[in-house]
Amino acid sequence: MAEVDMPRRLTAEALGTALLLATVVGSGIMGETLAGGQVAMALLGNTIATGAILVVLILMLGPISGAHFNPAVTLAFLIRREIAGRDALFYVLVQIAAAIAGVWLAHAMFGLDIVQASTKARTGGAQWLAEAVACFGLVATILGVLKAQPQAVAYSVGLYITAGYWFTASTSFANPAVTVARALTDTFSGIRPVDAPGFIAAQIVGAVLATLLMGWLIRRGD
Amino acid sequence: MAEVDMPRRLTAEALGTALLLATVVGSGIMGETLAGGQVAMALLGNTIATGAILVVLILMLGPISGAHFNPAVTLAFLIRREIAGRDALFYVLVQIAAAIAGVWLAHAMFGLDIVQASTKARTGGAQWLAEAVACFGLVATILGVLKAQPQAVAYSVGLYITAGYWFTASTSFANPAVTVARALTDTFSGIRPVDAPGFIAAQIVGAVLATLLMGWLIRRGD
Amino acid sequence: MAEVDMPRRLTAEALGTALLLATVVGSGIMGETLAGGQVAMALLGNTIATGAILVVLILMLGPISGAHFNPAVTLAFLIRREIAGRDALFYVLVQIAAAIAGVWLAHAMFGLDIVQASTKARTGGAQWLAEAVACFGLVATILGVLKAQPQAVAYSVGLYITAGYWFTASTSFANPAVTVARALTDTFSGIRPVDAPGFIAAQIVGAVLATLLMGWLIRRGD
Amino acid sequence: MAEVDMPRRLTAEALGTALLLATVVGSGIMGETLAGGQVAMALLGNTIATGAILVVLILMLGPISGAHFNPAVTLAFLIRREIAGRDALFYVLVQIAAAIAGVWLAHAMFGLDIVQASTKARTGGAQWLAEAVACFGLVATILGVLKAQPQAVAYSVGLYITAGYWFTASTSFANPAVTVARALTDTFSGIRPVDAPGFIAAQIVGAVLATLLMGWLIRRGD
Repeated sequence: MAEVDMPRRLTAEALGTALLLATVVGSGIMGETLAGGQVAMALLGNTIATGAILVVLILMLGPISGAHFNPAVTLAFLIRREIAGRDALFYVLVQIAAAIAGVWLAHAMFGLDIVQASTKARTGGAQWLAEAVACFGLVATILGVLKAQPQAVAYSVGLYITAGYWFTASTSFANPAVTVARALTDTFSGIRPVDAPGFIAAQIVGAVLATLLMGWLIRRGD
Repeated sequence: MAEVDMPRRLTAEALGTALLLATVVGSGIMGETLAGGQVAMALLGNTIATGAILVVLILMLGPISGAHFNPAVTLAFLIRREIAGRDALFYVLVQIAAAIAGVWLAHAMFGLDIVQASTKARTGGAQWLAEAVACFGLVATILGVLKAQPQAVAYSVGLYITAGYWFTASTSFANPAVTVARALTDTFSGIRPVDAPGFIAAQIVGAVLATLLMGWLIRRGD
Repeated sequence: MAEVDMPRRLTAEALGTALLLATVVGSGIMGETLAGGQVAMALLGNTIATGAILVVLILMLGPISGAHFNPAVTLAFLIRREIAGRDALFYVLVQIAAAIAGVWLAHAMFGLDIVQASTKARTGGAQWLAEAVACFGLVATILGVLKAQPQAVAYSVGLYITAGYWFTASTSFANPAVTVARALTDTFSGIRPVDAPGFIAAQIVGAVLATLLMGWLIRRGD
Repeated sequence: MAEVDMPRRLTAEALGTALLLATVVGSGIMGETLAGGQVAMALLGNTIATGAILVVLILMLGPISGAHFNPAVTLAFLIRREIAGRDALFYVLVQIAAAIAGVWLAHAMFGLDIVQASTKARTGGAQWLAEAVACFGLVATILGVLKAQPQAVAYSVGLYITAGYWFTASTSFANPAVTVARALTDTFSGIRPVDAPGFIAAQIVGAVLATLLMGWLIRRGD
């Protein structure tokens, strides 16, 4: 990875994170619009699109930037000393900016107001537990599969989030940049800005725990 | 596999089985909640999440513990003398304990009472036949694919259970630890405690038959 | 393949074809029962289960028998002289018998009368065209992918039938043994016995055309 | 690729594009017919069939023609000088003719009038933006994945379009030949002939931008 220069790596992170958010928010709008009041059907469309695009984006951009698209994932690699602190900082800033751009792109494609703020409450201990579990599982998936079957990481992440949309009570945001950006859409996938910090804190806890556990479970040199 | 020490193998079995149950039960709750009375839609969400997480967990933890997550699978490897009796016993105990923990985690994420008991009746000859078929097919899948295409086992198991949720009348529990744990949730995926022994007996019959048949069909050295 | 003896090859064909039919018919019953009058939802459950089990069965049994499970596929390999005439005859007889057994197994699992006959009309030129297209595409898929990426055949066949359930007006029976067996169930996936010969004739036409076209398109030694 | 002669390459493009359109239009008809007024369910059937058949067709025909099935993709390879101008012209003509034939095949299979024209309006800036994004993402997917993991292109394209049906407001036509052909069906997947040029122009813009960006992002020799 270190062979690719930073401008290209950051461009890849930006492209991937923007398309990820355009998909999460766009498919939420499409699902909600077409499904009428059938929330399960809306979530199903949201799920299939998000899971599918994650596989694609990681296959496409993984060889360039590592395809983090997620500050929690960048944090895990920072803890493992597999990315430099300064590079990690740039990664996270680009991820957040691109995530917001992706939400605005979705709004533009669906002819909605570009700048919005969510009014959907997502808070409380059960939701925070769900986000910690969601992000724990995501980081454990990446670290576990990367070691044994690196070519299967893209499929694993797509499938993990596919499951996460249904098995975690919070529908698995599992990504601080995604959380910030989804605070800026008042559609299916939104979260009130005031509720974002709680989600992000829970995600960081989950990511750190997964990094520590997997670090012990899969020792280098095993 | 034998190169990984037992504490790590058991931790992997515990992590995988707990996340599997959190997914089975959690996605059942999510599906039932969002789908209103549309049972097929609830089962679809349940199916997609369960199939997806199985692929992920087996890819992630297979290299550590073999990713059994299932006493019937451990039994099959015991019959084939590919796991020691003492190790098998520890596997099964950990699987059952972790399965129960996974159900409680799902309850906590959805803000439900942690300790429950199911009131959903699942009994009778047709259901037992279905469970025997379900577990027969699961063990045959694992043993058959493991021999010829080991890297495809994870996908095969996820796809097998995806099919099993729909083609077996019992929705393919196919796992004694899962059966015990699902007796402890009064939600979509539950089974009355009194009905669990019948399911488990049928699963063991199916697992043993599959082990014997596949042992003949795929002789070592073929 | 020739290294595996005939009893095992025929057992593999029987096991695979029976489980395929148990899935097609069983998931049709499950879908219809749970979906109420929502036919699209019933077909979706039917589709997902059938596509998934095909991948699994071909991965599991392909190394033993070639995983035909379908007289039209056996015919294609006979035309290409990749199976002996006598072996092909045994394959077809076993496929038909096992397909019927699979339907009966589905009926038993769902507590229905074992012996039934379908009353669902499926006939006319448009349906026959659809079946010819369905079987043409299936055989073209197998022959095309087998040449270039043999390890992807299982996934291709599962995905092809997933598509076929929706894009062909007949929902892609695409298999004479399946057609005979589905005449013996008066559930979602049935076909009137009187309509079976038209479907089978169309399937054979499609299979032969695909074998000829792909034989030209992918010449040996290319 | 250059080793396969042009008649075979064009036959592969024709076969693949015709089956692609038969699937897009056929599964749209099936979905709309079975789903009653539930548009999300109709789109879901349309999505699953289209995504699945794309994987199959690219696996089957990629080794022969490169499996473009899309003038925008052929244009990308032309810009990259990976296909000769004359060959590209033939590719595009065959793609358009075969796409139309595929639509007519779908109509014939469903017993509809063969020759139709769509009355479904799809126009305006938001839709054009969506088509530019859709085609940008498709071409970026192909070029990005082809470089790093060529054997994963088929799966990536299928998954990309699966996502695109839900995250772009236009449901991702992303293909000028598909757009022309879908103007000729007055069913679920149609587009008014008068709206086709706007879609095609947007697609070309997206394809060119993706080719330029990915050309910089993934330099040869990296």
